[in-house]
Amino acid sequence: MKRIGVITTGGDAPGMNPAIRSVVRCGIASGLEVMGIMRGWWGLINEELKVFQSRSVSGIINQGGTILKTARCPEFNTKESQDRAYSTIKKYAIDGLVIIGGNGSFSAAHSFGKKYNVPCVGISASIDNDINGIDYTIGADTAINTALNAIDNIRDTATSMERIFVVEVMGRDCGFIALSVALAAGCEGVIIPERKLNLEEICHDIVEGNLRGKASWIIVVAEGAGKAEDIAKKITEITSLETRAVVLGHVQRGGRPTAVSRDLALRLGQIAVDCLLRGESDIALGFACGRVEKINFETAIKKKDLKIDQALGLLKILT
Amino acid sequence: MKRIGVITTGGDAPGMNPAIRSVVRCGIASGLEVMGIMRGWWGLINEELKVFQSRSVSGIINQGGTILKTARCPEFNTKESQDRAYSTIKKYAIDGLVIIGGNGSFSAAHSFGKKYNVPCVGISASIDNDINGIDYTIGADTAINTALNAIDNIRDTATSMERIFVVEVMGRDCGFIALSVALAAGCEGVIIPERKLNLEEICHDIVEGNLRGKASWIIVVAEGAGKAEDIAKKITEITSLETRAVVLGHVQRGGRPTAVSRDLALRLGQIAVDCLLRGESDIALGFACGRVEKINFETAIKKKDLKIDQALGLLKILT
Amino acid sequence: MKRIGVITTGGDAPGMNPAIRSVVRCGIASGLEVMGIMRGWWGLINEELKVFQSRSVSGIINQGGTILKTARCPEFNTKESQDRAYSTIKKYAIDGLVIIGGNGSFSAAHSFGKKYNVPCVGISASIDNDINGIDYTIGADTAINTALNAIDNIRDTATSMERIFVVEVMGRDCGFIALSVALAAGCEGVIIPERKLNLEEICHDIVEGNLRGKASWIIVVAEGAGKAEDIAKKITEITSLETRAVVLGHVQRGGRPTAVSRDLALRLGQIAVDCLLRGESDIALGFACGRVEKINFETAIKKKDLKIDQALGLLKILT
Amino acid sequence: MKRIGVITTGGDAPGMNPAIRSVVRCGIASGLEVMGIMRGWWGLINEELKVFQSRSVSGIINQGGTILKTARCPEFNTKESQDRAYSTIKKYAIDGLVIIGGNGSFSAAHSFGKKYNVPCVGISASIDNDINGIDYTIGADTAINTALNAIDNIRDTATSMERIFVVEVMGRDCGFIALSVALAAGCEGVIIPERKLNLEEICHDIVEGNLRGKASWIIVVAEGAGKAEDIAKKITEITSLETRAVVLGHVQRGGRPTAVSRDLALRLGQIAVDCLLRGESDIALGFACGRVEKINFETAIKKKDLKIDQALGLLKILT
Repeated sequence: MKRIGVITTGGDAPGMNPAIRSVVRCGIASGLEVMGIMRGWWGLINEELKVFQSRSVSGIINQGGTILKTARCPEFNTKESQDRAYSTIKKYAIDGLVIIGGNGSFSAAHSFGKKYNVPCVGISASIDNDINGIDYTIGADTAINTALNAIDNIRDTATSMERIFVVEVMGRDCGFIALSVALAAGCEGVIIPERKLNLEEICHDIVEGNLRGKASWIIVVAEGAGKAEDIAKKITEITSLETRAVVLGHVQRGGRPTAVSRDLALRLGQIAVDCLLRGESDIALGFACGRVEKINFETAIKKKDLKIDQALGLLKILT
Repeated sequence: MKRIGVITTGGDAPGMNPAIRSVVRCGIASGLEVMGIMRGWWGLINEELKVFQSRSVSGIINQGGTILKTARCPEFNTKESQDRAYSTIKKYAIDGLVIIGGNGSFSAAHSFGKKYNVPCVGISASIDNDINGIDYTIGADTAINTALNAIDNIRDTATSMERIFVVEVMGRDCGFIALSVALAAGCEGVIIPERKLNLEEICHDIVEGNLRGKASWIIVVAEGAGKAEDIAKKITEITSLETRAVVLGHVQRGGRPTAVSRDLALRLGQIAVDCLLRGESDIALGFACGRVEKINFETAIKKKDLKIDQALGLLKILT
Repeated sequence: MKRIGVITTGGDAPGMNPAIRSVVRCGIASGLEVMGIMRGWWGLINEELKVFQSRSVSGIINQGGTILKTARCPEFNTKESQDRAYSTIKKYAIDGLVIIGGNGSFSAAHSFGKKYNVPCVGISASIDNDINGIDYTIGADTAINTALNAIDNIRDTATSMERIFVVEVMGRDCGFIALSVALAAGCEGVIIPERKLNLEEICHDIVEGNLRGKASWIIVVAEGAGKAEDIAKKITEITSLETRAVVLGHVQRGGRPTAVSRDLALRLGQIAVDCLLRGESDIALGFACGRVEKINFETAIKKKDLKIDQALGLLKILT
Repeated sequence: MKRIGVITTGGDAPGMNPAIRSVVRCGIASGLEVMGIMRGWWGLINEELKVFQSRSVSGIINQGGTILKTARCPEFNTKESQDRAYSTIKKYAIDGLVIIGGNGSFSAAHSFGKKYNVPCVGISASIDNDINGIDYTIGADTAINTALNAIDNIRDTATSMERIFVVEVMGRDCGFIALSVALAAGCEGVIIPERKLNLEEICHDIVEGNLRGKASWIIVVAEGAGKAEDIAKKITEITSLETRAVVLGHVQRGGRPTAVSRDLALRLGQIAVDCLLRGESDIALGFACGRVEKINFETAIKKKDLKIDQALGLLKILT
């Protein structure tokens, strides 16, 4: 193995840049050449890539986003595009790929790697934290803290104006961010894709609390579990109490990576290079049970089994 | 003058708490008793108020929101409610009011103060920065920095994914926040209530930029000038380029007040007490031309004349 | 078990407040009365404590410091003071104690608990992260992020002015924060108590780097491994290059707890109450290997065995 | 006038980058070529400069420090170095200079500009805010907010551990930052170069407060008015109360520029270019009385006349 490529695909996550830095510098330290592939799979298909030096990744350790840029690339599902991507790999004598991304990225890497016999190692980076078998992806901690700060702000208004807020956070299939944020921000309720929405119960709690003198509420909803706007409207209808919706949206995607996101990125980058050198492939790297785990791509992309009962129970007690 | 009341009304703004602190402690230092009136005009109408000690305002200088709570109070337009409010003022021997709020608050204070002969001094606190004759209200700088940080985050994704974003910020009648944020965040366009929306021009710039290789755009829109969602949809229709909408919403209302917002709050609180002691009334205090200005309520609530041509010109040059 | 006490002792750490909140509300939810003991052991000795209601811990989840206040209390080593503390416990019928603190707190709790047969459960809260057998204490993540942001700031100047900086961070006996921060901030060197300081090697690297054109350096030093001022002077002497010292100091102790610190605090608070109810005692709770661990006080206060070779190796590669 | 140069000299300040961006893009928009001169005067002496395109200043609007780098350059006082600098100016046909910096920079620009007849316009950028005739320099607002956040953190510990802190902030000759921060952070005392230090009075206040039950104090000291370490020691000696020192140091120099610092930078950059085009020279630009002012270099570098009595009086009342 003489030359590897590094690629960021799917939605960007804070921490992708330190991960790139780690792959490039650890690769070079192991005697490899490292090529940066631009714009996700698109760069492989369209031959947009270049050799990265150690200097190419200077000053990016604290930057959000990805200097390799990224894109969702549905065309990579076609044989024609995959053939072109493989031609690029042959032409540039790339012996292995490090793919920094989430579920979609790993699914594509799995099928591409097997079909064309290209060693692929994935680094879990996704603010949704929805990789199966992994506790923490790169970016999740940053996104959670961003959402937390936003909700701390909203709490000021909720308390001052004695209002109910429904705040929509990231998480299409996975309630991890919603649950983490709701707990850490001391929110009064949480709505996640893993549980059936029980709006009657929420409204009952609100009305009952209101009678006791509790005047402000923040309910967190994962985007995959409902629209904040709709839920706020229904709460207003049922309780006759003014309820506002806030959608945090893309603000959660950017920003300086936190210490946890950077640390994870740097460690996983090093191990990804080691894995390729040792001939390991078709695996995703992530943090689980306090250490780095290697998960088969096929397992990683399965529906995540989130342990939520304990967290939901604690939320109920704490509010 | 022996006893004054302090009240926060309308939407909350970061810096109201240090303003309360200043009114209470400067009042006490001048030999006055200061009563805190809860929940805006509602507290006057419903006799919810109490004497504040110096200790009552400890530890709030860096807190968002308002410990007096606040509310919009449409019922204060009725004679019955105003009579009840006046009864409270008589009953508690309150000799003057400091009203911390925005346009709506000053309008109510103006009519109430004149009708019942109650000395009223206003402190301009509003994240919209829409008080006429005043450069900076308490809260505006904090809201702008909050929006700025959010757009810095969005820029990470806009650049990494090469996308167009339309970001809606506060400002129902006034483009001040939108313009300030768009300039400071290096945004490529801004849509404000003071100017007719010219979507064709924006789309023309985007398409032309796209041909030159410019791939990411952030357009800021003041809430009073259009909905981010609608504008994003139209840009997608006209340019065929994927465009996303983000509504920053209530996140801008809370949070720790910045140095400017705190400084302003502390100074205006002191001067408000001085004004009442000197027999001045029916005026709003704010910062203009680098110093504290006293503006008649009637002038303050007029449509703000925002100088925007220069800022718009600079924005055009800088992007 | 009908009534428990909660106490914060030793240096304060961000996250103590959410831990108090959790102990109080989980205690009440389990049918217990919870007494808040003020100013650490001092409050037990001097009978300063009161019954906390659920409301007593409202609005503190995002506040640094501790509403119970804390103190170092050397007098608690005397039999007289311990007898008085025990009298308080008897007088108020306290059946168990939750002690939120670090090594010193656990050492005191261990000897006091055994001598007087008082059930004691510790919650690991210390920005030094120096509890043996535990990966993460409450407060460590917040302190690391605070230090990280500070060093990101210093990097701006180091790069712009092409200077060498030695930055002193927390950590008397333990290099955990120094190492974490140095890695995450992309620093060029780290000096920790667990390793002999080799200033010649550092200076050699600097001079060599300087010849290659590398003009700015940041070296992180744990407070227990040397004084930034002294090290900076020696580097200047040896390399003839201007070197500045910065001591982050108490800034790292405060601030809003991060999501990780809050999450940990809330979970440990719940489990501490459970432990007391189940008759467990003489143990410290902390996060290790991705889950909550119970460590005997005697083990917890031993010298922490920090795995640092891998991290030091990675640091070397990445810079 | 066809070609201008832009230079950052002296200590770096947050907002220098948006100022560079504005000079470059406004210059180009006015039909000028703009050369970026590296490392302050050193780059002129050593011919390190290059033509900047609009793209050269992309993505720097929210970055601390300066992409032109900066240096203190005592050798620029010699005729030989000035001659060499002038040769560079002739060789590259530079018709005017924009100097972004503080007092020292303006002093050098004044003498160099007059001696060699080179049009020079200064942009006030200095975290000390010590330019005479100017209310706000670029960077001051950012530095103040950084110091404010640090002191908010320290307050958590001061309150929790009931301690006295002496916090040293920037300001060699000017107490502006110290005073602003002390007011906005609700500090109990401030020590500035403009006033004789009266430690007995401070200690008297502390002891008296202590008797009333006030247990925590934060005293802010400008670096030019004394060393935090020394002052803390003396307070301990006089009052017998434990007192800690914190030196914020270079942390205040870096970080993302705030909205005010960016706004100022962008506006001053535009006006600096206009001034050169109109033939104005030997002037510094800054913000005073709510608008951009032009101050002769000779006036700008005089000792700043800070109005402090009112602020000191307010501080006394508020604590």
